[in-house]
Amino acid sequence: MNNIVLVGFMGTGKSSVGQELARRLQWPFIDTDAEVERETGLSIPDIFRHYGEGYFRKKEQDIIQRVMQGKRQVIATGGGAVIKKENRQLFRSHGIVICLRADPEVIWDRVREKDDRPLLQGREQVAKLLAERELFYRDVDLTLDTSHKAPEEVGRTILAQLGWQKKGDFSLQLIRVNLPIAGYNIFVRPGILSRVALYLPGELGKRVLVISDNKVSSLYGPVLFSALKEGNYQPTLKRVAEGEGAKELSVVADLYQASLSAGIERHCPIIALGGGVVGDLAGFVAATFMRGVPFIQIPTTLLAQVDSSIGGKVGVNLPQGKNLVGSFYQPRAVLIDPTLLQSLPPREVRAGLAEVVKYGLVFSPELYHLLEREVDRFLALDPHITTPVIAECCRLKTALVERDEREEYGHRMLLNFGHNIGHAVERASGYGTFRHGEAVAIGIAAACYLSVKLGLLNPDIFDRVKGLLERIGLSTHLYGININAVYGNLIYDKKAREQKIPFILLKDLGKPVIFEDVPREIITAVLKDLGAGK
Amino acid sequence: MNNIVLVGFMGTGKSSVGQELARRLQWPFIDTDAEVERETGLSIPDIFRHYGEGYFRKKEQDIIQRVMQGKRQVIATGGGAVIKKENRQLFRSHGIVICLRADPEVIWDRVREKDDRPLLQGREQVAKLLAERELFYRDVDLTLDTSHKAPEEVGRTILAQLGWQKKGDFSLQLIRVNLPIAGYNIFVRPGILSRVALYLPGELGKRVLVISDNKVSSLYGPVLFSALKEGNYQPTLKRVAEGEGAKELSVVADLYQASLSAGIERHCPIIALGGGVVGDLAGFVAATFMRGVPFIQIPTTLLAQVDSSIGGKVGVNLPQGKNLVGSFYQPRAVLIDPTLLQSLPPREVRAGLAEVVKYGLVFSPELYHLLEREVDRFLALDPHITTPVIAECCRLKTALVERDEREEYGHRMLLNFGHNIGHAVERASGYGTFRHGEAVAIGIAAACYLSVKLGLLNPDIFDRVKGLLERIGLSTHLYGININAVYGNLIYDKKAREQKIPFILLKDLGKPVIFEDVPREIITAVLKDLGAGK
Repeated sequence: MNNIVLVGFMGTGKSSVGQELARRLQWPFIDTDAEVERETGLSIPDIFRHYGEGYFRKKEQDIIQRVMQGKRQVIATGGGAVIKKENRQLFRSHGIVICLRADPEVIWDRVREKDDRPLLQGREQVAKLLAERELFYRDVDLTLDTSHKAPEEVGRTILAQLGWQKKGDFSLQLIRVNLPIAGYNIFVRPGILSRVALYLPGELGKRVLVISDNKVSSLYGPVLFSALKEGNYQPTLKRVAEGEGAKELSVVADLYQASLSAGIERHCPIIALGGGVVGDLAGFVAATFMRGVPFIQIPTTLLAQVDSSIGGKVGVNLPQGKNLVGSFYQPRAVLIDPTLLQSLPPREVRAGLAEVVKYGLVFSPELYHLLEREVDRFLALDPHITTPVIAECCRLKTALVERDEREEYGHRMLLNFGHNIGHAVERASGYGTFRHGEAVAIGIAAACYLSVKLGLLNPDIFDRVKGLLERIGLSTHLYGININAVYGNLIYDKKAREQKIPFILLKDLGKPVIFEDVPREIITAVLKDLGAGK
Repeated sequence: MNNIVLVGFMGTGKSSVGQELARRLQWPFIDTDAEVERETGLSIPDIFRHYGEGYFRKKEQDIIQRVMQGKRQVIATGGGAVIKKENRQLFRSHGIVICLRADPEVIWDRVREKDDRPLLQGREQVAKLLAERELFYRDVDLTLDTSHKAPEEVGRTILAQLGWQKKGDFSLQLIRVNLPIAGYNIFVRPGILSRVALYLPGELGKRVLVISDNKVSSLYGPVLFSALKEGNYQPTLKRVAEGEGAKELSVVADLYQASLSAGIERHCPIIALGGGVVGDLAGFVAATFMRGVPFIQIPTTLLAQVDSSIGGKVGVNLPQGKNLVGSFYQPRAVLIDPTLLQSLPPREVRAGLAEVVKYGLVFSPELYHLLEREVDRFLALDPHITTPVIAECCRLKTALVERDEREEYGHRMLLNFGHNIGHAVERASGYGTFRHGEAVAIGIAAACYLSVKLGLLNPDIFDRVKGLLERIGLSTHLYGININAVYGNLIYDKKAREQKIPFILLKDLGKPVIFEDVPREIITAVLKDLGAGK
């Protein structure tokens, strides 16, 4: 959360609102136009007159590049700064971008008196320039209309929407996912469900299809619906059956019909309210209905909040296997409310925590240490712990997704730590015996133990991991499971190419290493030591 | 067709092959490494030693930027030039990019004797660097292995594959589609069907699913299969029924099963061999099977060759309407063989020509004039006319697709010239009475006449357009069609937002203009004048 960047057309109040925000946050205020004038010693009209717009834009870009290196600043940008893609990317990657808007008439009234607006020579030009720049003002975090509002009011509204009512109150966590075509925001905030309309992107159509399962929709449907209606959305609910069985082509066909009945058109969103199954299914429908409509994820399980709702993998199963049909289709926003976890069965929270442990082990010793210290408060679902932990997992996954959106280059592969043995155990024991996260916990323990066996990892760390998983209430042994069944499933895992079994192992906390080929004897010895039978 | 750019690892023969190509084409030869040495007055080892790799890369990039402004040059690049994205984009947009490869042992033998390779200090480094750069060498137009070949042989092979056997023989037309994520090539060449394997991208898996209909597969399946087998591909054929009825979810489900049976995995391509229906259907399967597998279009109808195979719109119908389910999913290559048109019923060629007339009217007076001059030779399917005309249509559509891949900004809307009245006529007359292109021809005539009525277009041009359409054998009147039925369907066309009927009209050849709201009286008067009844 480095900076607040205000963009928007001239006369929308960027400077006055920016000064107000800076005062409230006690952050420095920077106006890039003023910086250009200071550096060149010339007024902006003079720069345009004598050196032309190109020169101004170049100077402006240099200053933006320098300013964006700083942190915790409120930055008001020139009205045309967003035209350059490089500027937009800098704003995006180094701050929360807020767009101020106003009616063309209001803008004209505000700027007509001044003679320092070189691009504006008449009322009709306001509308024309506004239309030309419309596109550049779209991809922002928040949009506010300042037409008939004082800067104080606008500043107060912005801080309320960000959840920063008072200085230092960072109860909203915002993670930006930067992708080449369409980036989006992940918002993590306790209670966000009842304020959903504030966090939806500005350009959505008003008709909304909410896809959920029976259980989740009866728990949270009413809150979501009244929040949507507050934002003047017209939601329709379509329920699907609970469980993996719903991820099926015939259900997709039903959901196309539901989309038609709900009047969904190209800009109308489909919202997934539920766990991974609902997210995968609703996401695939959103990806393919009318060649793609906006998709919003509101994940309600821990596993969906820290993993499956982020990254754009959507799809359904075929009788021959899971996720054989699908797309990479990014949501337009992910809204995560950690308080929703309170309605989950404790077993599901525990299972979900296995993935959190995985993020800590593979990517972040800090997260791992935090878990060791605070796992009991997490299990008690204290939002002061769940919120930052979930947000950190989102951040870690986002970093991988940004580098490898479509799983082409192997970066996302590290997310499979513990998953190959986990999947094999799931299959060997028959689906349904273990929850996915429970099998992953066993896989994590096995991967750590294998790392010790191969001389990579200090045995103390294996003991600590085992201890943490057990404190969570996750089993780390393989009693009652057949070694050969696990090994056989390991070979036929779809990730195993050409009979080689790639293993992600650990050298230390946060130090994963990929082993292309682990000898069968060592794998079976590990499975045996962890309690699997013949 | 500006330049030939040779990329590839050191020791793959870029300089010697480049000189050979330059000799044969009588184009200048430029070696970017030599340019760097010339400009700096230093040898490359000296630059690395005294100034570091960063300095060298910067100099190299400057030179590439300058050199790529030229045309008709053979350019050999340094082995690491492809690392910079900016360089790759320049190569792509200003030339045909050819990658030379060689076995690591051959490379080592070629370079070990020299002391001017600063990055290479041992045999094992060849393999390591090769692996690191693998990714950068992928997205090219042609790849050739030079391991045990003389430069003369490699040069000859390249020119043969490009179809430039002798200087000036440009019987291959290559259109590059530049898109932010994955660009691709459109090849237009008489006889390309029997040489398909030469034109497929290098990184595809060997198992291939060919989707076609009964009629097309019996005509062209055998040629395609033997061409694929020559390239060591293992093709499987899956037939679908002929006609629009096949664009249906249950057929998609069948095709997923066929993909599984054919052993299609993530890198194995699905090839569409057929017209628009087969392309839309196979493309949707490719877009969604295993979250997307490579897709190759081999369009066999004129309409598919000039329009539907380009642009990435794939999908199927729902009972409520056409193309309600689908994606934007770009092919990895489009291979167009104009000789395939010979097996089409003449009526289909005539109908397809309506879209070609559209391209000429809206985007290219040159194309329109060429059609007026050579329409008879086109109807006789002379490849000397069909090849450049089809390629020009592909170029025009590509330019729109590049600017607006997902139909977000309205650029692609101009492609609907003649289509709103066309669709309305199709619907008012019951699908099946007119072929799509025949209805579009009526729509084109109506749009031109409307343009005249509104005082935009010179009546002489309307007469010429009517004359050209009639020479093609396309009707331009509305006898037997009910005015109110057409008007009603015009209002309910899905492109009509908020009851406004946007019309694309003409001010002149190549000068389209969008009218947001044409009065009902004028539309009905035009329909009446064109022969529609009450």
